[in-house]
Formats: sequence, C-alpha cells, structure tokens
Amino acid sequence: MGNLHEECGVFGIYNRTPETMDTAKTVYYALYALQHRGQEACGIAVNDNNLITLVKDLGLVHEVFDEKTLSAMKGSIAIGHVRYSTTGGNNRRNIQPLGVDYVKGSLVIAHNGNVSNAAALRAELEAQGAVFQCTSDTEVIAFLIAKERLAAPSVEEAVARVVPRLEGSFSLLIMSPRKLIALRDPKGMRPLCMGRIGESVVFASESCALDSIGAEFVRDVQPGELIVAEPEGVRCLTAGVNHDPASCAMCIFEHIYFARPDSVIDGQSVYQARIEAGRLLARTHPVQADLVIGVPDSGLVAALGFAKESGIPYGEGLIKNRYIGRTFIQPTQDSRESSVMIKLAPLRRSVEGKRVVMIDDSIVRGTTMRQIVALLRRAGAAEVHVRISAPEFLWPCYYGTDIDERSQLASVQHSPQELCRILGADSLGFLPVDQVETIAPDSRLHFCKACFSGQYPYPVPEVADKTAFE
Amino acid sequence: MGNLHEECGVFGIYNRTPETMDTAKTVYYALYALQHRGQEACGIAVNDNNLITLVKDLGLVHEVFDEKTLSAMKGSIAIGHVRYSTTGGNNRRNIQPLGVDYVKGSLVIAHNGNVSNAAALRAELEAQGAVFQCTSDTEVIAFLIAKERLAAPSVEEAVARVVPRLEGSFSLLIMSPRKLIALRDPKGMRPLCMGRIGESVVFASESCALDSIGAEFVRDVQPGELIVAEPEGVRCLTAGVNHDPASCAMCIFEHIYFARPDSVIDGQSVYQARIEAGRLLARTHPVQADLVIGVPDSGLVAALGFAKESGIPYGEGLIKNRYIGRTFIQPTQDSRESSVMIKLAPLRRSVEGKRVVMIDDSIVRGTTMRQIVALLRRAGAAEVHVRISAPEFLWPCYYGTDIDERSQLASVQHSPQELCRILGADSLGFLPVDQVETIAPDSRLHFCKACFSGQYPYPVPEVADKTAFE
Amino acid sequence: MGNLHEECGVFGIYNRTPETMDTAKTVYYALYALQHRGQEACGIAVNDNNLITLVKDLGLVHEVFDEKTLSAMKGSIAIGHVRYSTTGGNNRRNIQPLGVDYVKGSLVIAHNGNVSNAAALRAELEAQGAVFQCTSDTEVIAFLIAKERLAAPSVEEAVARVVPRLEGSFSLLIMSPRKLIALRDPKGMRPLCMGRIGESVVFASESCALDSIGAEFVRDVQPGELIVAEPEGVRCLTAGVNHDPASCAMCIFEHIYFARPDSVIDGQSVYQARIEAGRLLARTHPVQADLVIGVPDSGLVAALGFAKESGIPYGEGLIKNRYIGRTFIQPTQDSRESSVMIKLAPLRRSVEGKRVVMIDDSIVRGTTMRQIVALLRRAGAAEVHVRISAPEFLWPCYYGTDIDERSQLASVQHSPQELCRILGADSLGFLPVDQVETIAPDSRLHFCKACFSGQYPYPVPEVADKTAFE
Amino acid sequence: MGNLHEECGVFGIYNRTPETMDTAKTVYYALYALQHRGQEACGIAVNDNNLITLVKDLGLVHEVFDEKTLSAMKGSIAIGHVRYSTTGGNNRRNIQPLGVDYVKGSLVIAHNGNVSNAAALRAELEAQGAVFQCTSDTEVIAFLIAKERLAAPSVEEAVARVVPRLEGSFSLLIMSPRKLIALRDPKGMRPLCMGRIGESVVFASESCALDSIGAEFVRDVQPGELIVAEPEGVRCLTAGVNHDPASCAMCIFEHIYFARPDSVIDGQSVYQARIEAGRLLARTHPVQADLVIGVPDSGLVAALGFAKESGIPYGEGLIKNRYIGRTFIQPTQDSRESSVMIKLAPLRRSVEGKRVVMIDDSIVRGTTMRQIVALLRRAGAAEVHVRISAPEFLWPCYYGTDIDERSQLASVQHSPQELCRILGADSLGFLPVDQVETIAPDSRLHFCKACFSGQYPYPVPEVADKTAFE
Repeated sequence: MGNLHEECGVFGIYNRTPETMDTAKTVYYALYALQHRGQEACGIAVNDNNLITLVKDLGLVHEVFDEKTLSAMKGSIAIGHVRYSTTGGNNRRNIQPLGVDYVKGSLVIAHNGNVSNAAALRAELEAQGAVFQCTSDTEVIAFLIAKERLAAPSVEEAVARVVPRLEGSFSLLIMSPRKLIALRDPKGMRPLCMGRIGESVVFASESCALDSIGAEFVRDVQPGELIVAEPEGVRCLTAGVNHDPASCAMCIFEHIYFARPDSVIDGQSVYQARIEAGRLLARTHPVQADLVIGVPDSGLVAALGFAKESGIPYGEGLIKNRYIGRTFIQPTQDSRESSVMIKLAPLRRSVEGKRVVMIDDSIVRGTTMRQIVALLRRAGAAEVHVRISAPEFLWPCYYGTDIDERSQLASVQHSPQELCRILGADSLGFLPVDQVETIAPDSRLHFCKACFSGQYPYPVPEVADKTAFE
Repeated sequence: MGNLHEECGVFGIYNRTPETMDTAKTVYYALYALQHRGQEACGIAVNDNNLITLVKDLGLVHEVFDEKTLSAMKGSIAIGHVRYSTTGGNNRRNIQPLGVDYVKGSLVIAHNGNVSNAAALRAELEAQGAVFQCTSDTEVIAFLIAKERLAAPSVEEAVARVVPRLEGSFSLLIMSPRKLIALRDPKGMRPLCMGRIGESVVFASESCALDSIGAEFVRDVQPGELIVAEPEGVRCLTAGVNHDPASCAMCIFEHIYFARPDSVIDGQSVYQARIEAGRLLARTHPVQADLVIGVPDSGLVAALGFAKESGIPYGEGLIKNRYIGRTFIQPTQDSRESSVMIKLAPLRRSVEGKRVVMIDDSIVRGTTMRQIVALLRRAGAAEVHVRISAPEFLWPCYYGTDIDERSQLASVQHSPQELCRILGADSLGFLPVDQVETIAPDSRLHFCKACFSGQYPYPVPEVADKTAFE
Repeated sequence: MGNLHEECGVFGIYNRTPETMDTAKTVYYALYALQHRGQEACGIAVNDNNLITLVKDLGLVHEVFDEKTLSAMKGSIAIGHVRYSTTGGNNRRNIQPLGVDYVKGSLVIAHNGNVSNAAALRAELEAQGAVFQCTSDTEVIAFLIAKERLAAPSVEEAVARVVPRLEGSFSLLIMSPRKLIALRDPKGMRPLCMGRIGESVVFASESCALDSIGAEFVRDVQPGELIVAEPEGVRCLTAGVNHDPASCAMCIFEHIYFARPDSVIDGQSVYQARIEAGRLLARTHPVQADLVIGVPDSGLVAALGFAKESGIPYGEGLIKNRYIGRTFIQPTQDSRESSVMIKLAPLRRSVEGKRVVMIDDSIVRGTTMRQIVALLRRAGAAEVHVRISAPEFLWPCYYGTDIDERSQLASVQHSPQELCRILGADSLGFLPVDQVETIAPDSRLHFCKACFSGQYPYPVPEVADKTAFE
Repeated sequence: MGNLHEECGVFGIYNRTPETMDTAKTVYYALYALQHRGQEACGIAVNDNNLITLVKDLGLVHEVFDEKTLSAMKGSIAIGHVRYSTTGGNNRRNIQPLGVDYVKGSLVIAHNGNVSNAAALRAELEAQGAVFQCTSDTEVIAFLIAKERLAAPSVEEAVARVVPRLEGSFSLLIMSPRKLIALRDPKGMRPLCMGRIGESVVFASESCALDSIGAEFVRDVQPGELIVAEPEGVRCLTAGVNHDPASCAMCIFEHIYFARPDSVIDGQSVYQARIEAGRLLARTHPVQADLVIGVPDSGLVAALGFAKESGIPYGEGLIKNRYIGRTFIQPTQDSRESSVMIKLAPLRRSVEGKRVVMIDDSIVRGTTMRQIVALLRRAGAAEVHVRISAPEFLWPCYYGTDIDERSQLASVQHSPQELCRILGADSLGFLPVDQVETIAPDSRLHFCKACFSGQYPYPVPEVADKTAFE
C-alpha cells in the first residue's frame, strides 16, 4: 500500500548502432518501465566520444525529459536511473547518475541498492582528507574506485578491487570514457539482468525494461559478476562470481512487492511468485468465504492465487482512483472525507452481504488497512478476512528498503491477534516466514528475509554519523 | 482504450453548515471522484452571499487547485466541473463552470451533455444581435435563460421555460445568487443524482462522488425534473418530469465505459452491468479457451463476467504502466518501441501456451487492438480471441461522446470477419446490439443506443456553422 | 513611481506580404515596445483567411509567447494587446483581444481606454436579455456592434453607428473576417497612430512601436476617424472626425507619465514635453540648490529639463535595482530593510553635503516619496527639495487611469505645505494646473486634465452596479 | 553592453539576534543588491546549530526563493551567492554555495573570483585519488582545506595554510559548524567588505549590499586578511595581510563596469570613478559636439562626466526597453527588426540634427555598437562620436571575467581607426591604458589591468584539461 520504498532502478546501453537507434530515447523508454522502482527523481547520462551529457532532476521520467532535452543528448553509451528520495523538498544532491571526474577522466555511476558499511568507509576516507557532497553511498563507491584506479591497470580492475570492501546491496552500472560496466553484488541482493537489442547490449534492474524496448533477455548478471561492454565487445569477469546459491541473499520483497509482475528475476516469474504467495496464504490461513478481492494494485495477483487455491470466487471489491497526484491536498483529520475514501472506493454491489477475503502485500503501520476494512463493512461486507502476502515486518532493512521506524511497525507493536482486533477484521493471516521462500521455487538464488526474520546477511551497521545537511 | 471521451462531470452543493464543512474543499474532493469523466480542465465556483469566486483552468483537479486557492474560496453554494476538451493547446474559452452576469445578477452553469440543436439556437440568437465568446452549447443555454428571465417570475421558472427548446443531453447545475438548481433533460440522457450530507444537499453526475465525500445517496434526478435548493429548503419541480421510461434515452455507454464501476445509475449498478456484458459475450460468442483476461482498466470487469459465465479461468494478462503522463514522448513510427509496448506489458508467464480470451470495451480505429494482439502472440499466447463488451460503433454521437470521424471507425469500414483478420485475432465478437439493454436490467430508464443502431432520440442536427476561432 | 496604471496598449497589422514578414512575430515585437502600458496580461489574435487563432494569458509578452506558439499563428491580419489588470489572482476573463462570434462571423477587438457610460449601456443590454462574461466595457462595445450590424450594410458602418453612443476614451482595433478597422474616440482621449511597413499598414497606441519594428510613421488617427484596411486598400472614414481641437481631450498624463519618451503623439514629442515640464517647474518653483536628480526612471527627463532651465547641475542620485520581480517578497513593516531601500539606492558620493532638487512625476499616497526623502537625508543630502512634474492629483479618472481611491490621495488630504512637512522635504512644488498644457505646445489636440482640475469632458458616471464575480 | 560577465557576488552574516532579524531573509535582500554580479543562479545556506539548510538553483533571487522556502531556513549563520554560469542548459553542478562534509563535519563555501592554477591543483589531487563533481575551482579549495585540516588545529588555520597555494582571485566566505570565515586573496583582486548591523557582523562583495539592508559599513577586508566570526566574537587574522598596495591587483573593471555605482571599494566611489573616466575621455579625446549621451545603463555615469568636463550638454539619447526577458525570441537575421531596435530606442527629438558624443563602457565584438550608431544616424544625428570609458580589450582574463575568445575581440582584430570605420562612427576614442588608474585616485590598492595591458599579476595558466561533462 505504498509505504515501502526501494531506492532505485537502473538501465544502461552500449549502443553499437546509434545512427538507427537513439541512445537517450532508448534509456528514456526503459526508465518508464522501471518508474515503479522510484518516482521522486531520475536522470540519464550519455557519452558521446567521451563528452558526457548528464541531465537529472526531481520528478517523473516524463517530467524531467522532454523532446528538446532528449534530442540534445547524443552518444553511444548511456546509463539511466530512477530514484525514490528519502529526503524531501528541494534536495537535488543525491539524484543519480552520479558523474565525477577523476585521474583517468570521467566516471558515471548508477546504483541500485544500499552499501551497509558506507558510513564506516566514508569516515575512513574523510580521515584521509576527502570531502563529500552527497549523503549517498554511491559517492563513497566512486571515491574507492578512483583510489584503486591509481594502481589498477584498468577501470574494471579498479572496480573489481573495490567489491570486497563493500557490504550490502549494489547493482551498479558504471560508464567510463570508453566502457560500460555492470556489476552485481556477491550475494545478488538486488536484481540485474542483461539483454540484447540488435548488435547492442543493455542492462536493466528488471527484465520488464528489456521487454518494453523490444530487447531480448539474455540472462541475469550473476552475483559477484562484472561485465564490461567496450568497443572490442563484451567481456564477463567471472573471477568474483559467487557460485554458492545458498550464500546468496536476493531480496524476497522484490517478488512480493517491488518488482513488476511481468519481470522474471533469476529464473523466477514475479507474477508466478505472487500467485504462489496467494496459494500459500490460502493453505496456511484458510477461511470460509464468498469472495476474494485484492487491494489494488499490489494485492491483485496474490488475490487471484488465493482464489485459485481456495476455490472461493475472485472479484473486484475496491476501485482505485487513478488521478491522485503529488499535489493532492490531504483531508484534515476531522473532515468527513478520509484520504482512503478518496483513493479507494468499495464496490458495494460486489461485496454486499458477502464474506470477503481481502489480500494486501504488507502491513506497515496499519492505519490505512483499518480504514479499508471499515470501508468494506460500510459497503455491506458481512465479514472481512485480511490476508497479507508477506510475513510480518519485524526488523529494519539496511539494503535499500525504506521501512518506517521499527517503533512504528504494527507487527512489532502487536501480535496478529491484537492487530486483527485493531484493524477491525474478522481474521488476519500472514505468510509463514519459514515457508516464504517456497513462493519462488524457480529462483536460482536463495533469499534475504532479514526484515521478517532478523537474520542479516552482513553485520548490522552501527548508527551512521549523519551529514549536517538538509 | 481511451479513444472515447465524454465531455463532463458536474457536482454541486448547497451547504447549510459552511462553518463545519468547507464548501470548496467538498467540491474539490468530489471532483476527484469524477475526474474519469474529464481530464483536460476543471473549475469550481463558490457563492459567498452573492459574491462569486470562480477558478478554472486547464489541468487535472490537483493541478488547478492548491491549498491557497481553495482556502480563498469561501461560501455556502458551489458547483464544480471536470471537462474533456476537444480542442487542444492553450484554449481556455470553454472551460466550465460558465459564469455570466445578466439582468438579475449572476448565473453560473455547469453542464454535462450536449445540446444537439445548439447551432440552430445560436444562429437564432445571433440574428437578434447576440455575441458569443465560447463555442459551447452552454453559453446558448445561458442566453436563453437570460431572455426567458425577462418575463419569468423566477430563475427556476426561466430555466423551466428553456427546457422545451433544447434537444439532446443536459444534466445541468445552475447557481443563482440565492439558489442551486439541478436539472436533468427530459430523456435522462446523462446521469444526475442527489445526495445528502448532514443538513446539506448535493448533486453529482455519478453516485461515486457522493460516496467519496461521505454523502448519502438520496435518489436520481428524474428525467425532466428540476430541483431547487434555496434558503427555505429543497423544492422539486416535477411538472416537466417524463414519466414514460420507454421514451427515455439514457446513454448505455455510461454503463459500458464512461461511469465508474462503483456508481449506481437509475438503479443499475455499473459494475453489475459490466459483469453482465461479459456474461452476455460469453453466451453469444463462446469459445474454447484456457484464460480470460481484460485490457486494463476498462476491460477487467467484463472479463470477470465472461470468466464466470464461461467457466474459463480469469487471470491477469496485461500490465498497465501507471506512469505515462501527458508529456510522454510518442515513439516515432519506425522505432522499435511502439507506444503500446510502453503502456502495456504482457504477462508471459500467465499467457504463454494458452488460448486467451481478451476483453475490451470498444474498438474505435483498431490500431491499438492490433498491437495488443501482437503483444500477446509474442508473449506466447497460442490463440487470441478478442471480445468487445459493446456492439460495433457505427454512428456518430451528438449527445456528448466524442467518437472519431465516422470514416475512421473500424466497424464502419470493415465487417467483423475482416476486422478480425486485420487485428490478427483468432476470433472476434461484439455484444449483439439487439440484446445490449439486457446488461442493465435494473435501470429504471430505457437507453440511447444511437452510436450502435443509428436510431436517434432527437432529429439529427444539420452540420453546424463552426466558429472561426481556434 | 508606479502607483498609476493605464489599462492598455494596442497594435494591429494588415500584412500584405505575410510570406516575407511574419505577421504574429511583428505584433510580438511591437507589443514589447508597448509593454510599459500594461504588464499584467497580453494577447495576440491572427486571422488566416477567417480562421482566427487567439492566444492570451496573464504575464509579460515574453512569458505568454514562445517560439512554438508564435510559429503556429499564421495569417495576414493580426491585432495585439497589453493590459494592466485591476483584478488580481487567477482572473483571466478580461484579457484582450476579445474574440466573439456574431451574426456575420467573427469579431476580435483590442481596446485602449475606458467607456465611462459602459455600466448604463450594459444595463440596457441586460434588460433586453443579454449575458456578459467579462466585466469590461469592451464586451459592451462588441454587443453594440453586433446589434447595429443587423441593420448596417457593413461592419465599419456598424462600428460608426455605435460611436455616438459611447462616452469616454476608446482607441479601438477591430478585426473582422476580411478587415482591420482602427478607430479613435471623437475627443482623441487616448493616442493611436498609423504606420507603413513595406506594402502593409500598421496601427499602434504609440509611435515607439512603429520604430521598434522598422515601420514608418504615417500620421496619428484623428479624433473620431475610422480607418479600414481591407483587401482593396485602406479607406479613411472621416465623416465622424472632430475637427475642433479645442473640444478634444487627449490625456495630458500620457505626456507626463504613461507614454514612452521616444514616442510622438499628435505632433508632440513626449521627451520634449517632459523636458518642458521640468523647465516649467524650475520657473514656477525655483530654489537655490547644488544638484538636480530624478527618481528613476520616470523622473529623469523632467530632471534634465529642470537642470537646463535652472542652471543647477544635473546628476544621478538614486540607483534603481533592475531585478525586482513580481515574486519579490515585501519586507515586513518592522524589519530594518524597507522596500524602498531595496528598490532604490542613494548615491552618497553624488548627494553628500548637497542641496538636492529631486524630480518625480507624481505623488499618489506619498508613502514612497517620504521614504526616498529619508534615504537621501541618510546619504548626506543637506537639503531635499521635491518637485513634481505634474499638478496635484485631486479627482478620479473615468477614462482608463487607475488612480487610488480619492480618500487616499495625498493631495486630497493635505495642502502642499502639510504634504511637504509629511514628506520631510525642505520644499515641495507641483506644476501649476493652469499652465500644464504649455508643456506640450506642439500637440494638435487640447488636453483632458480632469484628474487635476475636476473638469470632465463627459458627464461623470453614476456608480456602476458591479459584477458579483471576483 | 552585457557581453562581459563576472562570475559571482557573495554575502554572509553571523547573526547574534536571529530572534529579531531573520537570517535567511537578510541574505535574500542582500543578494538582491548583488544580483547585477550574477543572474544565472543563486543560493543560500543557513546554519542552525550545525544543521545546514542549503537551497540553490538556476534563476534570479526572486525566482529561486519564495516565502515558504525562506521561512523554513532557520539559523544564525548564513552565506549566499549569486552566479553567472558560463555553461548553459540544465547544468546545476556549479551553483554555489558549495556544501561538503569532511572530517570535521560540514563546510560551506561561497566564492567570488577565479583560481588561475586550479587545473594544476586539481590534477595533483586527482593523482592522489580524489574525485570531483563540479568543474569549479571552489571544489578544489574545499579539498585543499579538508586535507590541511587533518593537521591544522582549526578550520581557519587550515584555510590560512591553503592560501599560499592558490593563485588568482578569491574573495571567500566559509561557513563551518560554528564559524563564519571571510578571506580576500593577497592581491585583493576582487572586492570584499565587512559591515555591522546591530550586534551582528556581515560580509559582502560590495558595500551596496550593506546599504540595502541597513547595515553600517565597517571597512574593506584587507588583501590576504582572514576574519573569523564565532560565538566568542570577531577575530582578524592579519598574519597573511599584504601591506604593499603596489603589489595588489584589484580588478579595475569593477569600477568601469561590474560594480554598482553606489558601492565604495577600497575607499574609491565607483560612481566617482565613472565620472572621472568620462572626464578623462573628454580630455584625451575631445570633440566638437552638441550633445553627450550614454548607452544605458552602464554608460550613463561616464557620459555625465564627459559632459561636465567638456561643457557639452548632457542629455538622453537612447531609451532601454526594460521588459526584455530571458525568453525573448531573437529576431532572425533577415527580419527587419533587429534585436538592438527592440532593446534600445533612439530619442529622435533629442538627437536630431545634433553632433552626438555617445559613451559606452566597452566594445567586445562591436556588432551591437555598430547597430547603435546606425540607429542614431537614422534618428537624425548629424555626427556620432563613440567614446569608450575603458581601454581596448586585448587580452584574456583568468581571474573571473568572462571575455569572449581573443580572436573575436574587436580591438584585437582592428586598430581604432579601422574599428571606427567598421562601426560607422565619425570618431572613436578609448581610455588611454597608461592613465586608466587615474580614474580611481582614492583606491587604497593598485589595480590589475591585464585585460588591457597583458601584464598579469600571476603566471598565465597552461591550458586546463577540461572536464568531459557538459
């Protein structure tokens, strides 16, 4: 229901036929397909024989880029980024791609993920006299590459030498004067895949971006793998590849919520994973009911799965208003119209007199869910059974998911029984944490479930000294 | 699929407790719920003891109104309007509500519908020396009211005297210095309903707007009925009411496409009508298949109905990109990425190897549908059976639906068999025009089906002398 | 000092060579030269074989029009308008040109001036059933023309028949499907001149607009004259011309403040008139002093004249900040920085220890002037002698000048002696009202000085029934 | 005439009474007074107990800051910056103030000037592994300070240690968590002064900014001086002060063009310097003439000086259009309206039949001047004598003035005689380079005249390796 955010989506292209396929526009269309991964800011950098044009700003892809801007962005290598920015207002510092000059020229980086030991690495660099202009871990990565490059024989070698120093998640696209480098962290925490379009190679956070531009899916980038696209061709540096799937920690929440259902990650269809999540819910939390509905949009597929498994008919029960924009004025607390009433409308004819199973993908604070349950009751639902296609959120994420303060998480504060009562529901069920991996049997990688289980793939970072900047 | 547009949604309130319920904000939230009826422009007029503030502009509700603007709009009577403008660019002339000064002070009008003899009435007024600043029929209505008011004892009487002169569709909200008047044309061609919130009365194009602000549905305004909300209370002028349902001509396309599924119009649930449309399709155009999908968003409910009736499983097959804004740059013809590929993504895992029934609400030119069929085939669909939850579009609409030129309508040019081949589908079926009314058995009014049947409820207007203004 | 506003500037062109001279761009550049006459809104209408494109909006010329908009405005006849709008906020209703449809097609009007009996005319039309959408007198003129056109053999004849019904000031440009008509009111209250550029004829509020586009000045339009540019050529309808200069009433404030100094109106150079105003001040209010300065920009020329006549050296004493935009945040009352301190800076080196004569063009409320006197004293001026290059403002203007409420005019409230003390000046002098006409000896027309003398050229209108619209 | 740009103006405040004087708004108003020093971008950083809010963007002060933004910027130390950006489009990287995190927390820098050995220093830092995100020298300064701070006992000591490494011009304001530091380079190349307002200390590029906020001028910062405002009070670190005025190199073009005439720099009134420049021109290039005019705005004061010295009457001859905005559409080459005709209008009545001396502050390419001469001739000037209140531009500036390519400078290409003929003038005179310093006899510092003489105060930098970023 929109209270969880991941910080990025990335896309890159090494375009061997810029005369017939516009480089910047290809990135533009691909970013549209990744927009669900970040709606606060976006950017594209294009390399035209080592002259780099970098345009980035707050806003959606269609707000930041217009025909004139894109037309002026010529070149054959490009990377793009969409971002959910955790800081508000006018802050543009952390928008990506990040472009820097260093001893060998230029370096442009687009990063999906979060380096959990960034604060420690940053303190170390500051102790050597470094200055930082962003608050992001990406700038730390750029610094480390620049330092390694002093000794390393190539930029990809410098990148490879930095990898062991980083903890956490990082799917990276790096553009040097002549090369496009793709890198996925050794545990494969965030997705990254490779495609082909004509003679050209592309990389994307999700396969849906390949489909949207008519590119062919080639394969996922392997955990720890580094791929270099350069004038001579494409080279895969597999020295760092982690061949042990069990030591991988791909974020299971990509399947539950973040990724687009038409994407396939590490062999696993996201759509199928959601269907399976619904099926698993139906098996582990069965209920006698007349109708299964999903909270649009993210609960719809799991609702289909629940309906299939349970045999209870699937239907629509809530209509989502598609016109609520960024500048929507929130109703005041004491006004009759609640925000939820304006955003979601119950389908009285569909739910009236029915025992309804309602599926959503998560409960963060629980406030919205309580209002939705009330909406359905007012529309005549005889019973409302809430089913969540994820386990309970109990632990913070250090790898790129922006979960609320732990103290505000409903499941930290309340047992499912208490929470059910607070929501006003007739019953409440979560996915069992010990079976959650079974929703994605096709995945070649094992999963990170830290936000549910508290078992982290890397040491938990000590609290970071935050920047003084707003 | 978005090639059909109606021109308006209206909302009005006579607020007896402005100190506890903000008049302008109530309209603001109600217009959100009507935004699907018009996305090009909107406006709100508020009457504060006969001082009228009217704010209107091109854009969505959340674009035109901000907290500061709304806060400055005080008063106890208000009307609002959302509009689809058929003219492009910078043209603001026809945005509603229309406010005029006349012999008795001010008159503000919000109009949903289209007066089909407006050109003739306008010519008549021009021949008496009138000047017109808009191209809309609403200005003609204002003129006629002003003229009748010279003799009529009250504004509502003047309005009543104008009604017999008008042909076509008009759900009108009229605000005079002291009164709010609601009027529905004698054939009930466009919906209009009345609600209650606390002591106050509200009117809306669709009942979903009442729900969104927590108002109680009272009843539909009857065809030909004129309702006056004034300081002394609410009066219903029923002299003009058309008591013969068979002579009514409520637009059936409201149920098929325009209205929101959670609305109930003249006793008929829109959701249920779409379910029934799907069921009727399944009965009249049955097919052996493995999966029923809808084109989002408008085809989804009918797809559920088709699935229920046919027993073929319902599923998702196409993902709609929610981030395509007004400023989206269309791909060029020869680029690999087609516009449809960016707006819709097939769910390969869902459709692969399947015989798919795909439901949409209409075919206008057919271009988009052809691309969707191709998308599904590339995603592995074994067969694609297209079912349209409406009859074939064959005739122009003069009552407020903006259908393309007749010469460009696919069904005018091609038989279903030809069209099926053009679309690349395995089969194609439309709702039978002679049974279309059966999808809405609860409706108290009979329907206008002129765009399908060519049988018009009013004489077809001769070609209008168009304005010289762009 | 910017507290006085006139409501318009107009420009029109009948372009016989649209292929070599862009019609819309010519208007665009001409409006730049008239921008000082109105900065709140502007518009251009272009007629392309009777298809009219009309673009208008709030904002300066360079804000409303961009390359793309202008390029789309093709045609051979065009009129433009700049406006100072007395109503604030989002109100776009009164922006000109005003375009209407009437019995003979389209009519587009741009109007500089104010019809003082408009309220009475409007009431008369409303009593016949007319509706009005603007609050402006221009709409009344359009209605009257439309009514006259029912009987008149041509549009220019209809216009000619309307003239006798109008009181007040009106320099009008009217575009019909085939013609461009220019008209100046019978007393010549507002300026209007004609020029030639190649084969084409142009009309402008001031001659500076002709110069800026390289057009040749032909002559002023005569009071009461009506000129028609049409395919067959240019015709001057002189039947209505007022041949008695003494009965004319050209606004003297055009010379003192409104017009640009490089314009020549009815034979009189505005620059020269301001020089003479300064000279007259020096003769009628002599003073012993060391330096003459002007308040930029409008007091500078009169200061030169004062210096020439008095022999006291001219210098700069105040620097105007050129970067104060519309969105400037006014300092709060109690802050140290006054608004004047930010807008004007004294030149200490120039004024220190000097007895300074400071010239401005008017005193409205006196607040600003008091702050300027204080600024100069703080900068070390030994004495500050204020001289105003106009008589005292004592009466309201009904002909297009937006003077503050009479009760707030400094000169209505205070004698010059009192006002001098309030301003903190050492002496204060105004132009003697009985000699003010001597500043413009070359003018072929006599002047209206009603705002100084209270002697009005037309009956003073009774208070208008104002519209209910904000 | 606007073809020369300096890159910055700076302002800083250590506000001891933030409860009675708003810190951010004080900077806002001061930046208005410095807006002439940079119109492309601006920014303000406010420090609230070490929480820094930094807002900066492309645009004028009134475009970037609104009431809401300023109200949210609380604190007691603040610095602001206005900038002329040499790079176009959407580039925001180099907008100042520059905020960085380093080993001791935050550091915010506003810089006026140009470090001429920045490329060499930057290369040195890159060779140690540094990365740069801007193209500006300011980032290099930040890096050097951060490195020195590792050993230095305080931030001001670190700054002091960096100074000897820098060549070129730098008036710097530096905000650390607790301190505001002001520094002027050892040759005093750019102005910087100190003021007092109540208990608080302020620093500004020009004294006009002090006047505009009601602050008292205290003194200029001395070349090489470093002043620290901190909780304990204000300390002046005079160890680095350059006590030899003859070795100073204050930019003489500040007096001729950049600075506002009401500013006083190092004891010299800018207004007086321009008067003297005009007087010197009259003595060195006398001419028989009837009228002296200046090209507005920058030539006006020198014209007054020329008139005083020569006895030839001063007058206005050219009117500047104040409404030409950033989005002005340039006329095409072959259109009748030249850009100059729209921007400047000759006062025919003033110049007709006269022998005119026209003063401007510089000739860069000469194109505009040629058009102005032609304008005056068409307006009837009998003779046009061009006098330039500066010597001939012959050499590039490395210290913050953005002069065109040397190959395009008119005076590099042509002798004065040739240039006179090209301009179509009757005579042409420049200030003699060997006497130019005499226009500023009150200045405590000697001047840099390198752009006229080619004698540079520092070694000329070798061509910099430019960044690859657009």
